[in-house]
Amino acid sequence: MQKQISISGAGLVGSLLACFLAKRNSKITVYERRADSRLEGYVGGRSINLALSERGWAALDKVGLRKEIEPIALPMSGRVIHHQNGEKYFQPYGKEGQAIYSVSRGLLNEVLVNAAEKMGVQFLFNQHCVEVNFNTTEAIFENTETKQTSTIKSDVLLAADGAYSEARYKMQRTHNFNINQQHESHGYKELCIPDLNGKHQIENNALHIWPRESFMMIALPNLDGSFTCTLFAALHGENGFDMLKTESDVAAYFQKYFPDAVALMPTLAHDFFTNPTGSLVTVKCFPWKTKNTCLIGDAAHAVVPFYGQGMNCGFEDVRILDELLTTHHEDWNKTLEEFQNLRKPNADAIADLALYNFIEMRDLSGRDDFQLRLKIEKRIAAAFPSQFQTLYGMVTFNQTPYFEAKKRGEKQAELLDEIMQLENIENLWQEEIILQKAAEWLSKN
Amino acid sequence: MQKQISISGAGLVGSLLACFLAKRNSKITVYERRADSRLEGYVGGRSINLALSERGWAALDKVGLRKEIEPIALPMSGRVIHHQNGEKYFQPYGKEGQAIYSVSRGLLNEVLVNAAEKMGVQFLFNQHCVEVNFNTTEAIFENTETKQTSTIKSDVLLAADGAYSEARYKMQRTHNFNINQQHESHGYKELCIPDLNGKHQIENNALHIWPRESFMMIALPNLDGSFTCTLFAALHGENGFDMLKTESDVAAYFQKYFPDAVALMPTLAHDFFTNPTGSLVTVKCFPWKTKNTCLIGDAAHAVVPFYGQGMNCGFEDVRILDELLTTHHEDWNKTLEEFQNLRKPNADAIADLALYNFIEMRDLSGRDDFQLRLKIEKRIAAAFPSQFQTLYGMVTFNQTPYFEAKKRGEKQAELLDEIMQLENIENLWQEEIILQKAAEWLSKN
Repeated sequence: MQKQISISGAGLVGSLLACFLAKRNSKITVYERRADSRLEGYVGGRSINLALSERGWAALDKVGLRKEIEPIALPMSGRVIHHQNGEKYFQPYGKEGQAIYSVSRGLLNEVLVNAAEKMGVQFLFNQHCVEVNFNTTEAIFENTETKQTSTIKSDVLLAADGAYSEARYKMQRTHNFNINQQHESHGYKELCIPDLNGKHQIENNALHIWPRESFMMIALPNLDGSFTCTLFAALHGENGFDMLKTESDVAAYFQKYFPDAVALMPTLAHDFFTNPTGSLVTVKCFPWKTKNTCLIGDAAHAVVPFYGQGMNCGFEDVRILDELLTTHHEDWNKTLEEFQNLRKPNADAIADLALYNFIEMRDLSGRDDFQLRLKIEKRIAAAFPSQFQTLYGMVTFNQTPYFEAKKRGEKQAELLDEIMQLENIENLWQEEIILQKAAEWLSKN
Repeated sequence: MQKQISISGAGLVGSLLACFLAKRNSKITVYERRADSRLEGYVGGRSINLALSERGWAALDKVGLRKEIEPIALPMSGRVIHHQNGEKYFQPYGKEGQAIYSVSRGLLNEVLVNAAEKMGVQFLFNQHCVEVNFNTTEAIFENTETKQTSTIKSDVLLAADGAYSEARYKMQRTHNFNINQQHESHGYKELCIPDLNGKHQIENNALHIWPRESFMMIALPNLDGSFTCTLFAALHGENGFDMLKTESDVAAYFQKYFPDAVALMPTLAHDFFTNPTGSLVTVKCFPWKTKNTCLIGDAAHAVVPFYGQGMNCGFEDVRILDELLTTHHEDWNKTLEEFQNLRKPNADAIADLALYNFIEMRDLSGRDDFQLRLKIEKRIAAAFPSQFQTLYGMVTFNQTPYFEAKKRGEKQAELLDEIMQLENIENLWQEEIILQKAAEWLSKN
C-alpha cells in the first residue's frame, strides 16, 4: 500500500526530501507556513546566499538535480581577506579546481519546489503546524489566511521546519526529550554591494572577509553582479549593534573598519536600518524520532553559518535517509531509528566546528601566523594525500563524516602546533623539516 | 495604584510567593492547572516527601509561617546507610542538633494555599495557561473542565509553573532565549513501607539509603508512621526499569538488592506496577525575565532531587525577590532584572551540585573511604569553624550562596584529596597530621 508521508516545511531540506521520496512511489504532501515564494517573492533579509559544497552536490547528484542547480551556482575558490589598511590577501580553500558555490537561497528553493511538483509532490502553503499528536501521527495545520484548521493523519511525518521547528517544540514536551538551544552574543545584518552595469565590482570568484577580531563582514557574489554582505557583530557593547543608533554612527563605523567596502555600499544606511538584526542559534537535541515523526535538517540540528555547512548537512541528512530506506526495505521505523543514531554525532560535530570557525573567520583568518599554519597544513596534505587531509577539505570537499573530520582535525592540530613552534618558522619556510616532522607523526598516528 | 500581579502555578513556590506579595498590598491572583487538592486529594506518585532545610525555613520564617509548618515536619538528623548484607551505618548530616525535615508535599502545599487565601489571595484552579503575550503581559488560561478561555492582563506575571513550565515554553520562542533541558538516563518510582499500628518500622529520625552503585533506594518518614520509598534506577539496561517486567522480576530484584526493606513492603508489586516511572530533568535557561513576565522556582531552574534543594532553592528565590522589591521600592522592572542576574549563577551551581550528589548517594555513600572523608571534613570544620565549613553544611544548614558553596567545596576538595592520600589513613585516624595539614592549607587559601 502507498504510504502517506507528510513533510512539514518547504524550505531547502523539506523540498529536496520531497524529491527523494517522490521517487519511491509514496504519496508526499508538503505543508509550509509561509506563502509560496514563487508567487509572492522570497522574503529576504536573512542568509540570502549559501555556500553549496561537496555534501550538498552529492545529494543533488543522487536525485538528479545537479544540472538544474549548476546555472545558478557561482564558484568561490577561496577567501579574499580585506585588511583594515586596504591590503588584500587571497587564501585558496582547497586544491586547484576546488571551490564552494554561492547560491541564492530563494532561487535554489524555487528550483527544488518546482522539481518536486514535477515529480508529483503536493505543496500546500500558508499552513502553520499548531499541534502534533505523536501517538497517532496527526498534525493540525492552521491556514494562516483563513484561520481554518485541518487535521492530517500520516504514516510518517518528517519535520523539516527549521531552527525554530514547531514540531520540535511539541516534541520537547514528550518524555525524556533533551535539548540545548544556545544563542550567540553576536547577531548579523545583511547589507549590499550592488553591481556596476551588471558586473561584479570586486573579485567574484571568492568569498570576501573583512576580519576585525571580535566582529567581521563577509560578502558572497550574486548572479546579477551584486554581492550580499553580512555584518556579524556583538549585539551589545563595544563595536556592537546597540552602539550603532544613527546614520552617522553607522557611516563612521564602516568608514573606520571597512573603508574599502563602504565606498561600494551606496545604500548602506538604508539597508542597515531596514533589515532586521538576525540571531545566531545552535540547537542540539535528542531523540529526533518520536514514534512515526522525525526531525531533519535544522529542526534536528541548527548550526551557526560559519562553516557554510547548515544546508549541506541537511542535504546529507536527506541523502543518508534515502540510503537507509533502501537498506531497510522502506521499513520506516528501522530507518528513522538508525538515521538518528547515525546522524546525531555528526550533527553535534559540525555544530561545534561551526562555532569554532567563527573565531577562525573573524579573528585568525586575518593573522599572518594563521595563514602560515594553513599553508603548512596544505603542504602536508599534498605530500601525504592518502594519510592526511586538511580539516577544511574533509568538511567541505569530501564526505568524511563530520564526527570523523572533527576528531582527525583535533589530532592533526597537535602536529601543526608542534611545527608552528619551530624556531624562526614565521620567517623561514623550512620545507624539509616540516615534511620530516609530518612523516614521523604519521608513522605514529 | 494597586498592582495586579498574576502567578501561574499554585505549587509550593507559587503559593509561598503569593503569601509574600499579599503582604505588600498588591492584588494577587494565582492560576493553577490542577484541581484544588484540598477538595480532590493530592495527586501523588511523585516526590511525595521533600527535605526542608535552612533556606526553606528562612523564607517561611520571614513570611511568618514557621509555626504552621513545624507540626508537619519530621527531623532527619542523618543518613542510615543500608548495606546489601544487612549491615547499617548512621552518618549524621551536621553537628549535634542539626537536621533536615521530611515534609509531605501535599500537606505543605495545602498549608501554604490556606495561608495565602487568608491574606486575601485569590486562587483559581483548573486554569491551564495556553498562551502568553509578553509585550502586553496578557496570558490566556483555558478552564480544563469547561474549556472556556479567559485573557488576563497583569502588571506583572510570575511563572511558578514548574519544571515543564508552559510560560517557559512560550518564552523559548522569543528572541535569544537560551535553554538546556537534559534528562538523566535514570528514572524513579515511589514505593511504600507502611506503618505498624501507627509506628515507624525503621529509624524515623533519619533518611534511609540503600546505595547500590549504579542505582539506589531511599526512604523518608511520614507523620502517620509510614515511609515513602523511592527507587532510582536506569531506565534501560542492567538493573534498569525495563528489566523489571513481571511481579517475579520485581520480587527477585528487591530480594537480591534490598532484602531488609522488602520484608517491610507488602504492597511492593502493586505499587511498582501502579505508580508511574518518573523522569529526572535538569533545566538551565536564561533570561528568566521577558518584559513584565518572570520565571521563578523550578520553571527557571529545575534540578534533580539529590541534594534535597529544589524546594529550598525555590523558597530562597521568593525570599530574595521580596528583599529586592524592598530595595528597589517595588520597581518591578529593576527588581526582576536584578533577581535573575543574582540568582542565575546560584541556580546553575545547585543544579550541578545536585547532579554530583546522585553519585555520592548511590555509590560513594556506601564506601568506607568516603565515610572517612566525610569524617575528616567534619573534624576540620569543627577545628576551624570560622574558616572551613563542610560543603553539605554550606548548602543545607546555612544560606551561603550556592555558587559560593560550590566554589569553596571544590577548593576544599583539594585539601581532602591530599589528606586521603596520607599513608595508612584508612586504618589509622591521624588527627594531629590532619589538623596540621588543614592549618597549613588554610593559611595559604
